[in-house]
Amino acid sequence: MSGNRVVVYKGPGEVAVETVDYPKLEIPKEVADHFGIKQAAPHAVILKLVTTNICGSDQHMVRGRTTAPVGQSLGHEITGEVVEVGDDVLFVKEGDICSVPFNIACGRCRMCFEGKTGICLNVNPARAGAAYGYVDMGGWVGGQAEYVLIPYADFNLLRFPDRDQALEKILDLTMLSDIFPTGYHGAYTAGVTTGSTVYVAGAGPVGLAAAHAAQLLGASVVIVGDMNADRLTQAQSFGCETVDLSQGASLTDLIEQVLGEPEVDAAVDAVGFEARGHGEGAAEAPATVLNDIMTISRAGASLGIPGLYVTGDPGAVDDAAKEGQIGVKLGLGWAKSHAFVTGQCPVKKYNRQLMNLILADKAHVAKAVNAQTIGLDDAPRGYQEFDAGAATKYVIDPHGMVA
Amino acid sequence: MSGNRVVVYKGPGEVAVETVDYPKLEIPKEVADHFGIKQAAPHAVILKLVTTNICGSDQHMVRGRTTAPVGQSLGHEITGEVVEVGDDVLFVKEGDICSVPFNIACGRCRMCFEGKTGICLNVNPARAGAAYGYVDMGGWVGGQAEYVLIPYADFNLLRFPDRDQALEKILDLTMLSDIFPTGYHGAYTAGVTTGSTVYVAGAGPVGLAAAHAAQLLGASVVIVGDMNADRLTQAQSFGCETVDLSQGASLTDLIEQVLGEPEVDAAVDAVGFEARGHGEGAAEAPATVLNDIMTISRAGASLGIPGLYVTGDPGAVDDAAKEGQIGVKLGLGWAKSHAFVTGQCPVKKYNRQLMNLILADKAHVAKAVNAQTIGLDDAPRGYQEFDAGAATKYVIDPHGMVA
Amino acid sequence: MSGNRVVVYKGPGEVAVETVDYPKLEIPKEVADHFGIKQAAPHAVILKLVTTNICGSDQHMVRGRTTAPVGQSLGHEITGEVVEVGDDVLFVKEGDICSVPFNIACGRCRMCFEGKTGICLNVNPARAGAAYGYVDMGGWVGGQAEYVLIPYADFNLLRFPDRDQALEKILDLTMLSDIFPTGYHGAYTAGVTTGSTVYVAGAGPVGLAAAHAAQLLGASVVIVGDMNADRLTQAQSFGCETVDLSQGASLTDLIEQVLGEPEVDAAVDAVGFEARGHGEGAAEAPATVLNDIMTISRAGASLGIPGLYVTGDPGAVDDAAKEGQIGVKLGLGWAKSHAFVTGQCPVKKYNRQLMNLILADKAHVAKAVNAQTIGLDDAPRGYQEFDAGAATKYVIDPHGMVA
Amino acid sequence: MSGNRVVVYKGPGEVAVETVDYPKLEIPKEVADHFGIKQAAPHAVILKLVTTNICGSDQHMVRGRTTAPVGQSLGHEITGEVVEVGDDVLFVKEGDICSVPFNIACGRCRMCFEGKTGICLNVNPARAGAAYGYVDMGGWVGGQAEYVLIPYADFNLLRFPDRDQALEKILDLTMLSDIFPTGYHGAYTAGVTTGSTVYVAGAGPVGLAAAHAAQLLGASVVIVGDMNADRLTQAQSFGCETVDLSQGASLTDLIEQVLGEPEVDAAVDAVGFEARGHGEGAAEAPATVLNDIMTISRAGASLGIPGLYVTGDPGAVDDAAKEGQIGVKLGLGWAKSHAFVTGQCPVKKYNRQLMNLILADKAHVAKAVNAQTIGLDDAPRGYQEFDAGAATKYVIDPHGMVA
Repeated sequence: MSGNRVVVYKGPGEVAVETVDYPKLEIPKEVADHFGIKQAAPHAVILKLVTTNICGSDQHMVRGRTTAPVGQSLGHEITGEVVEVGDDVLFVKEGDICSVPFNIACGRCRMCFEGKTGICLNVNPARAGAAYGYVDMGGWVGGQAEYVLIPYADFNLLRFPDRDQALEKILDLTMLSDIFPTGYHGAYTAGVTTGSTVYVAGAGPVGLAAAHAAQLLGASVVIVGDMNADRLTQAQSFGCETVDLSQGASLTDLIEQVLGEPEVDAAVDAVGFEARGHGEGAAEAPATVLNDIMTISRAGASLGIPGLYVTGDPGAVDDAAKEGQIGVKLGLGWAKSHAFVTGQCPVKKYNRQLMNLILADKAHVAKAVNAQTIGLDDAPRGYQEFDAGAATKYVIDPHGMVA
Repeated sequence: MSGNRVVVYKGPGEVAVETVDYPKLEIPKEVADHFGIKQAAPHAVILKLVTTNICGSDQHMVRGRTTAPVGQSLGHEITGEVVEVGDDVLFVKEGDICSVPFNIACGRCRMCFEGKTGICLNVNPARAGAAYGYVDMGGWVGGQAEYVLIPYADFNLLRFPDRDQALEKILDLTMLSDIFPTGYHGAYTAGVTTGSTVYVAGAGPVGLAAAHAAQLLGASVVIVGDMNADRLTQAQSFGCETVDLSQGASLTDLIEQVLGEPEVDAAVDAVGFEARGHGEGAAEAPATVLNDIMTISRAGASLGIPGLYVTGDPGAVDDAAKEGQIGVKLGLGWAKSHAFVTGQCPVKKYNRQLMNLILADKAHVAKAVNAQTIGLDDAPRGYQEFDAGAATKYVIDPHGMVA
Repeated sequence: MSGNRVVVYKGPGEVAVETVDYPKLEIPKEVADHFGIKQAAPHAVILKLVTTNICGSDQHMVRGRTTAPVGQSLGHEITGEVVEVGDDVLFVKEGDICSVPFNIACGRCRMCFEGKTGICLNVNPARAGAAYGYVDMGGWVGGQAEYVLIPYADFNLLRFPDRDQALEKILDLTMLSDIFPTGYHGAYTAGVTTGSTVYVAGAGPVGLAAAHAAQLLGASVVIVGDMNADRLTQAQSFGCETVDLSQGASLTDLIEQVLGEPEVDAAVDAVGFEARGHGEGAAEAPATVLNDIMTISRAGASLGIPGLYVTGDPGAVDDAAKEGQIGVKLGLGWAKSHAFVTGQCPVKKYNRQLMNLILADKAHVAKAVNAQTIGLDDAPRGYQEFDAGAATKYVIDPHGMVA
Repeated sequence: MSGNRVVVYKGPGEVAVETVDYPKLEIPKEVADHFGIKQAAPHAVILKLVTTNICGSDQHMVRGRTTAPVGQSLGHEITGEVVEVGDDVLFVKEGDICSVPFNIACGRCRMCFEGKTGICLNVNPARAGAAYGYVDMGGWVGGQAEYVLIPYADFNLLRFPDRDQALEKILDLTMLSDIFPTGYHGAYTAGVTTGSTVYVAGAGPVGLAAAHAAQLLGASVVIVGDMNADRLTQAQSFGCETVDLSQGASLTDLIEQVLGEPEVDAAVDAVGFEARGHGEGAAEAPATVLNDIMTISRAGASLGIPGLYVTGDPGAVDDAAKEGQIGVKLGLGWAKSHAFVTGQCPVKKYNRQLMNLILADKAHVAKAVNAQTIGLDDAPRGYQEFDAGAATKYVIDPHGMVA
């Protein structure tokens, strides 16, 4: 218990595994000071990581597209075993294996009570909402590590009912901390329901998870669009239709070729602000996906936007985008009475349901996103391959607990 | 029955009353041809206008900000008496006084069945949704007239239960065709409910109607913002707080002065694309209001956006805006998990409820918007005064039926 | 066109096929007179039946449990080809093959606009809501026939996009007129969603359709209960768990054996007022199923109750039940904060979505309910076998159009 | 701090004020044992009562209609000042004045997260849901006392923003612990919205609060029915219509006299299982109100049922009712597609909104229910007068803190 090894950001394009202090049952000092609350955390537990995944949103930091300082710890997709509990942890016990929503939430504020755990009011001095291992997200240590502190544990932890079963299905269950609920949230807020035709922009892990979620929500057809051929092949592997945006055809035409009509019932933006224009070698154009999904969604649609848009982007293509201002064709959506649903997925709203499906063998998200296990020391390689466009979801297994 | 006098657009800044043919029970030929349906309309009625209001969205055409041709007939806020009924009109009778939703809807398509009458699929060759007397809205003749055709009458008409009572309360009831439901839709889709604090951007008639609707929905405080002193005074007259944006103070500070905190629970954009920056003499800046309401709405809020945004704007300030592309700070809303609800109000969804409140003397929208009656020949003056910023809602009374 | 052969009720236990007049484009005189509307129906079409199914609710009449007079025509599960259209039918054409919701609805009243087509206000003098071929349901002629009148056709008909495809999948599509939407409505109003555990009371066609719908809505486990072994075997054939209530074990224990806990997330009553107590030879006990599903649903559940309860039942077991008063353990549900959702399924709310799933090969309801085709003249045998408990859904094919 | 005076049940018709131990930061031993959790409660606070009201549901116990033992402490309508906080109470401080939902909830279980605090899974060994001072509700000590323990305080307490303002409006704010949210829940779950016509059965404090809530939700007309003339007069005092059920006229006729039609849009049962038949001297008939509100609610209505129904009633009129089985005319509701929403109000879902309205001077519930302050020693008199039918809500002020 003398230390804790954790993945840290070392500068653009670079991460490393370093040793930091073993976690204490204490919240970050900046959070305690800002809210005038005790730093001691009888509500917290220490988890020993079972699995912890590399996420596309980690890449924004590692690519140098944020203000993350060198030394920022990483990792917010956390599944672990409880090894220490605070005095006010009542319903979780040592030895329990649990999934952790990437959103840190207090369970005691108005937003948490409304189920909006992505914008908890008590965990981040800078704004509503916090996360583990992320810049501007409250200073909570990341979970691509051996051990991690989880505050408000009775509220935040989703306990798996059976340890052996959990370890057996761990590659599916590990997706409950972020991308499976995030993909589901995208599809759900886009209004996907029985019989819908659905377009998912982006075949990265969140896009693939959204596509699988759309199937589980009863979609009649799910179409995934991307410019990466491997990722499109991955999408086809579990029954999606695909459209290849690197070839210059208009999205409208491509949709019509699949469906016989140029519009879908529901669309999900699983790309966000690092979007590019279409066609090979197209430049970054942050509102491309938003404008696309307005174009190909029917009148009256909701647009699910789990893809990240930022308040400022130092590495943006133009001055407006550096200040977070992007050229949205809002009138196009307005004419169609579109609704736009944005923001972090409140993971806790969905993770129990999705766990139940996984345990009943009715959801197969690990296969959909092509999960692959690596060791903690392989994290730098995982980041690199993922950034290069591998059609793979990297799952770190710090203690060799995954079979 | 030899003719019908109607208000028409004569070029930027100019309208006139002209005589056209008395309406027949027929839908526009372009609609019939496009959808391959009969032009004869046994489902239609002819209404004799009781009242017909001038709307802010008419001004977009009259200011020359659209592609409306000279000769475009005007008027979509229609209340009238049934004087002729088609063979398949069963539930409305001659002599009934009725309110007409400005959205023309067939009552037979998927959108109408879902209550989305603003995007009916069968009434406009150009897109989903139609309206009376409006460019690109299907070619239906306007209702600032003596008589007007109303198709699909059993579906579209809201019958007032008692003729005498209707005429007595006509200045309130006339607002049911557009601005009262539109304001209500803005407040409702912004999630205004019991106890909400609410900000309404814009103190024109729709903004004032939205403010009154917010009161009826149970808001604890309603704040209206504008740069027109008369309109702010009008807002105060029925119990709203106001903020004057012409004085250079930031909206955040102004909200904080009223509420003791810088954010509201719910916000409504009752301005749209002709928004200006703040402060005296500020230039047009189409995303100003959108960016404002993201700034001052709490995390988790829905933003109600009944204010019109267009797909193209020949008179816009820059090339992007001419193509309907405006600089939205989307990351600001994304960080707060905002939802954006856009589009025309589906009037029929709300007009019955609001009629019931008016008839029970529990809503007083005519007073809120300062309704004033004028004759049909006074329409040009009404347009001019309204455009100059009068804190008045002009109600045309073509037949002198209003007491 | 000289006549129309139709199935009629001839007295308890007896039906026959008789010849009546070929239908005219006219609504029943009693409906026209009561509502003061025209009997001529330019909004109507004549359908040539493609398929028309025997329903469990027909059996209430045939068993003599209602006040249906001898001569009552039967049949409300209608799929057909349009052979004649009225002057105000615009969006459906001769030759179209369409599904007909069993609820007759005007599309012009407040209830229809709210999507509540099961309680349309303009089609039945006796109460809200009407149906084809049913006692006290407005006097509309039944559709177990060669031809049938469908009023308000643009509103009521669901057009299949392709004739050949429709005929190929007709045994699935024929279930869209009633039992597939009705089963879906039961599951949907019970709140079945991603990951739910579900109990369906009754393995008749509606129960089996509800079970299949629960699967499509994303249930993790679906349990079907009945006392008929064949029907339970049928439920197992498409992946349901089953509990056999004829053996004396308590439902709570049986549920616990399947799930490891004695409660489900959601429950559907697909039985209604002719429920029996449990165990072999148990007597009729009309509130049995209601009390059962309160017992085995978790706190906070909604109970979906598509099973029919009646306002009076001449053949009931006691005087209270004869007046429609049954012994409900309401306090049991109240203590669990249950919601009870009752009434006819508004078919039109769901049939388009379910059609899309069938056409995309993602729903297989004909297999779930074991659909079997018979000729019109075989209808009496179909009624008899169904009443005897056959695990079969009988589909009448009056013109030999089904392959 | 040597003791705590509390109201206790002494046998049918009798209560007394007795001295018990001063509360400790500990949950009831039966709760700790049953759930295998710690009895020590770092999540709890001790409140000094500011006000604590007598509730109609206390009367069920005092009348001897439950299995409450002699010595049962009473009181679940609690408003108080925080005088001691546990180690894990972070967001509430000593000196804060707070309202306490009568539902005890952990804030950490699935039901609490869904907002269903009335059926928390972790606070009562006997069933879902607990309350202070109530039989079968978990063994928590009552709050008609000087001091009371509140567990899970950060979750359960609603903090008033300003102490002086709170004391000034305390007679309104004291209703936030139960009857104002309960009445609101009744109206809200009955679907009361802008323009609704509403019937509230019962003019006791919950009925009057429901009527006021209906006004705040935008009802056009609110009708209250009872057999107690004083309570009906009280209902009229704040703008309700009333119907007197003691005079033998049918409810349908009475409603028609008020509205001109025999049905309302929404109805609330604020009576529950101790209902009587209509007319002077009518006997108890537990399903009377339920059957009434089905009769006079329009097709498609939801019925809000905050009135208590029990699982067993030793003092019931017949054997069926003793086992909680009552004669419901379910077919009547089924034919109208009614939904029935039952159960305890989850107070926390509504109390913040209603507080905001009170603080903004837009809700006046104390006046609606005729609140009157009495001392702790006057509690027995308060119980007696309330049971005798006084049109008064008794508010106990144990420390003389109310002006």
